[in-house]
Amino acid sequence: MLLESIKKPNDIKKIDPKDYDKLAEEIRQFLIHSISKTGGHLGSNLGVVELTMALHLALDLPKDKIVWDVGHQSYTHKLLTGRKDGFDNLRKYGGMSGFPKRCESECDSFDTGHSSTSISAGLGFVKARDIKGEDNCVVSVIGDGSLTGGMAYEALNNASRMDTNFIIILNDNNMSISENVGGMSKYLNSIRTAENYRNTKDGIYTSLLKKKHGKEIVDTIRRAKNSVKQLFVPGMLFENMGITYLGPVDGHDIEGLVTVINEAKRCKTAVLIHVKTKKGKGFEPAEKHPARFHGAEPFDIETGIPKKLKPKANYTDVFSTVMIKLARRNPEVVAITAAMPDGTGLKRFRNVYPDRFFDVGIAEQHAVTFAAGLAAGGLRPIVAIYSSFLQRAYDQILHDVCIQNMPVVFAIDRAGLVGSDGETHQGIFDLSFLSSIPNMQIMAPKNKWELSDMMKFAVKFNGPIAVRYPRGEAYDGLEEYRTPIEYGKSEMIYHEKDIALLAVGSMVQTAEQVRDSLKEKGYSCTLVNARFVKPIDEENIVELCKNHKLLVTMEENVASGGYGEKVRAFVDNKELKAEVLTIAIPDEYVEHGNVDILKKEVGIDAQTVVNKVEKIYAEL
Amino acid sequence: MLLESIKKPNDIKKIDPKDYDKLAEEIRQFLIHSISKTGGHLGSNLGVVELTMALHLALDLPKDKIVWDVGHQSYTHKLLTGRKDGFDNLRKYGGMSGFPKRCESECDSFDTGHSSTSISAGLGFVKARDIKGEDNCVVSVIGDGSLTGGMAYEALNNASRMDTNFIIILNDNNMSISENVGGMSKYLNSIRTAENYRNTKDGIYTSLLKKKHGKEIVDTIRRAKNSVKQLFVPGMLFENMGITYLGPVDGHDIEGLVTVINEAKRCKTAVLIHVKTKKGKGFEPAEKHPARFHGAEPFDIETGIPKKLKPKANYTDVFSTVMIKLARRNPEVVAITAAMPDGTGLKRFRNVYPDRFFDVGIAEQHAVTFAAGLAAGGLRPIVAIYSSFLQRAYDQILHDVCIQNMPVVFAIDRAGLVGSDGETHQGIFDLSFLSSIPNMQIMAPKNKWELSDMMKFAVKFNGPIAVRYPRGEAYDGLEEYRTPIEYGKSEMIYHEKDIALLAVGSMVQTAEQVRDSLKEKGYSCTLVNARFVKPIDEENIVELCKNHKLLVTMEENVASGGYGEKVRAFVDNKELKAEVLTIAIPDEYVEHGNVDILKKEVGIDAQTVVNKVEKIYAEL
Repeated sequence: MLLESIKKPNDIKKIDPKDYDKLAEEIRQFLIHSISKTGGHLGSNLGVVELTMALHLALDLPKDKIVWDVGHQSYTHKLLTGRKDGFDNLRKYGGMSGFPKRCESECDSFDTGHSSTSISAGLGFVKARDIKGEDNCVVSVIGDGSLTGGMAYEALNNASRMDTNFIIILNDNNMSISENVGGMSKYLNSIRTAENYRNTKDGIYTSLLKKKHGKEIVDTIRRAKNSVKQLFVPGMLFENMGITYLGPVDGHDIEGLVTVINEAKRCKTAVLIHVKTKKGKGFEPAEKHPARFHGAEPFDIETGIPKKLKPKANYTDVFSTVMIKLARRNPEVVAITAAMPDGTGLKRFRNVYPDRFFDVGIAEQHAVTFAAGLAAGGLRPIVAIYSSFLQRAYDQILHDVCIQNMPVVFAIDRAGLVGSDGETHQGIFDLSFLSSIPNMQIMAPKNKWELSDMMKFAVKFNGPIAVRYPRGEAYDGLEEYRTPIEYGKSEMIYHEKDIALLAVGSMVQTAEQVRDSLKEKGYSCTLVNARFVKPIDEENIVELCKNHKLLVTMEENVASGGYGEKVRAFVDNKELKAEVLTIAIPDEYVEHGNVDILKKEVGIDAQTVVNKVEKIYAEL
Repeated sequence: MLLESIKKPNDIKKIDPKDYDKLAEEIRQFLIHSISKTGGHLGSNLGVVELTMALHLALDLPKDKIVWDVGHQSYTHKLLTGRKDGFDNLRKYGGMSGFPKRCESECDSFDTGHSSTSISAGLGFVKARDIKGEDNCVVSVIGDGSLTGGMAYEALNNASRMDTNFIIILNDNNMSISENVGGMSKYLNSIRTAENYRNTKDGIYTSLLKKKHGKEIVDTIRRAKNSVKQLFVPGMLFENMGITYLGPVDGHDIEGLVTVINEAKRCKTAVLIHVKTKKGKGFEPAEKHPARFHGAEPFDIETGIPKKLKPKANYTDVFSTVMIKLARRNPEVVAITAAMPDGTGLKRFRNVYPDRFFDVGIAEQHAVTFAAGLAAGGLRPIVAIYSSFLQRAYDQILHDVCIQNMPVVFAIDRAGLVGSDGETHQGIFDLSFLSSIPNMQIMAPKNKWELSDMMKFAVKFNGPIAVRYPRGEAYDGLEEYRTPIEYGKSEMIYHEKDIALLAVGSMVQTAEQVRDSLKEKGYSCTLVNARFVKPIDEENIVELCKNHKLLVTMEENVASGGYGEKVRAFVDNKELKAEVLTIAIPDEYVEHGNVDILKKEVGIDAQTVVNKVEKIYAEL
């Protein structure tokens, strides 16, 4: 095995060039086998095996810097920097992250997770290098999907017409997670397929640069007027922005890639290398079903079929179903996703109501203000975005939706702890950042039926409203509790005295376990499903305080600015006589791992809550 | 006066075309005189007098929709929709807003204030129109400065290759507030000055469209391969994105503008009309000093000099001065602004340390992740962004700076109530959205000396840290209180007993007044300068609770997620025996007006606080 000989950074340079393809194949087989057991991001990693090898051959790590946009495609990079053993515990608690982590390796120059950040970060490394008089090489690797994110454009705009080297590799597989959208995507596609396509060997710039006065000739062409340049250069759009364009080049030709990267290193400008890759390359099921193998569960290698068949519906399925119903009943209902038709469950909506469905690409800011425009135009937009990605649109929610009190519904999937993706993807801030925004209302369902009911309530509500629900299996307990959703009202599940649990969304299930334990121990215990995080149900809290000594708020969100603090402030301000215990996520980032382990780790699991309640109650 | 005859929307259509220039001149003089008295955005409004007239002539308001990006250039639009009288109380409390407001006129289709939102909102109107089967015309007017904001690109990317009409007017004055930056700006400039410049009359597309088979010919050209198209079309970059390009056209030629807008209305695509305007047009001081006349104070019309000379230094000046000192002492200090070298006070830094200064354009997201990259590269970046604009970078602060615990300093100007700009510009959410982010520290200075001291502390701090300070005059009281800044420690100003005021930044000055009043009434009262909003000074709070019955937290921020809630949670959780009274801004947007009036209105002025304290204290 060639792969066995790679123990540390730059070991790849000892491999005989004639064995490159063999090594690529070994890496590919390793990834397929390893991810088939642990799960993980397969398609994107299979697409960049050769590109990553070429980068490691052409660069000197860790002196040189690679910034991986999004970062879930860094598995080959991890392999080539001596982290092969880490794959046994990939994305498990305490195990190796699925993303680049500075704390894991000095070859991981910058932590990523969200889209479209790599050019900005890379430009920072470039400017720092120049100011400090260092001479390393900086490479940002960005997918064509990530290029739909506005901040990538902001960074390109700044990288223009520099007189220093900065390499941007456009990993173009014509996909984000699902099919890519928008003008840029179509433009790139036109280059991919254009008659003036040139491969590495006869590309006008690369071939010229190899010649004696190549640099001067290239400069002359770059100075020539647009009409002439266009005849030579396929990537005119980038050249117009002031960025040297090389490509398109075959992303699975290792030596070709090494050549072009080495050429790019000699440019005293920002250089964009347009690399054409195939997502899922070398594994037929992943090539055929790119969305399914984006973030894969463990699967059978022969068939590509997940090992564990999904036992129950998840919240995404429930959302998917109710959206069809809502659209059928109300012609004003339209749906928006930011590049996640599969992940959000809106694919069905797209198929049934294509004219009322909008995939805006990885562009959460635009998604939200576009929704505000749709609402101003008289429609009822539902924006479905994962909790951690919605952070991108905080200003647009505050400024474009809520100031004008627009009836936009936010369907916030992956709210709370998400598990194996870790820090960057935990949806544990939404209750806080949304709560501080005037005019916003926030709901969270306790189980699958309530998600449906809340969506029905939300599309009829005349103002901004958010429904947040967790990743994974939808809770199907408490079916018998289905009182109609009423604005600002919580739902009483078990009404007793002394201790009242006020649980938000997913925490209702945990609260049931807490209550069972407390009952066993002889306590009397009320359980309230909060339903509304904003506004809180003040009337009910006043009632509860009459015969409860302790209110326990429970939420899968950080404490600061969350539900518990709101309840506490109300109880204090009204000088009500109950103590408030806040169960929430502490003020720290939560790493990757199984959600049940993480809950225990951050102290929001049933046992920890029971212990805290007992301790505090004893002191009252 | 022609202007007198314009009482309501579409009245301009009764004006004889030969009088258009006369009306433009009247409007210009009206604006100069009116703003010289009230203050307001002058330069941008003088630049779009003719463009606005042309839009009102070519469109049918309010059926057709105009979305003004940023919106401070909508004064002529307000005049032409019957709001002339409003200018007497422009931007005053209860008076007319300086931005478009749906609540002011049905001709204001969408509220704006922050940059780069108009294409997204406009696209929303377009899709809503088509889904509802209506036939109005939608125009988004965006400046070349706003085009540096990523969400404008996200929207352009979505507006590409549509088969329905959507007009985007690029108001290109080669400026944002200060000089514009980046590749797009240079590209636009190359069009402005290119040899293949064509005015409206002989522009290839516009002239072709007028002919019988013009549409077909234009379509043929648009389908032709890029190399041919480039010979014809100056705006190839937009064409490559799939957006029809018309221009550049003279932005001060009313009839020419009307012609091209009418042509654009006939296109079944998104059309970008590139309009060249001059900021400050017709008023020499504004043409010469565009930054000074961006948001102007009342001025003398003859000289353009502000009527009220600035009596005292403001916080921006203090920041400006200390930045030079910090850079001199530490070669790793670099500074970043998002298109605000004047507004943030970084202009001096730029002049002295041009290689360590970065103006990234209106691109707050990129600014922050770029700073994270600079920090990862070993530098000490200070990012200076106004509080309300920093909302744009919430995810980048959380995801790119704080997860990696990068030493990035956030200098947050215009924090708290800002006054005449109103809802969109109030900096009253930063303490909340920053507090919920792990690893972040937050400080606020009580006076001008403390801002210097805090900046010095911040650049030495090894992690993310924010210093927030208000707009306007820097407080120069309490000079004698200048104990060294210590991590997480508050500063005791007056140490007594019973009542303790814990004030954040600007509220220390208010707290002094509160204390004076309370003392006069015979109360004993401690005054603490919080200094750190995160982490709070727990040790001091424990001490205070020993001989104070009431802690009064005071902050110029919304209550949810702010300083007061943190103090309350700590006091409760530690079961300390004091009551906590939170003085903060209630959960609603705060309109424009004089800051002193606004403070009273939201209940954070000294008198209101005294009343609340007395009432609560009496009940203890």
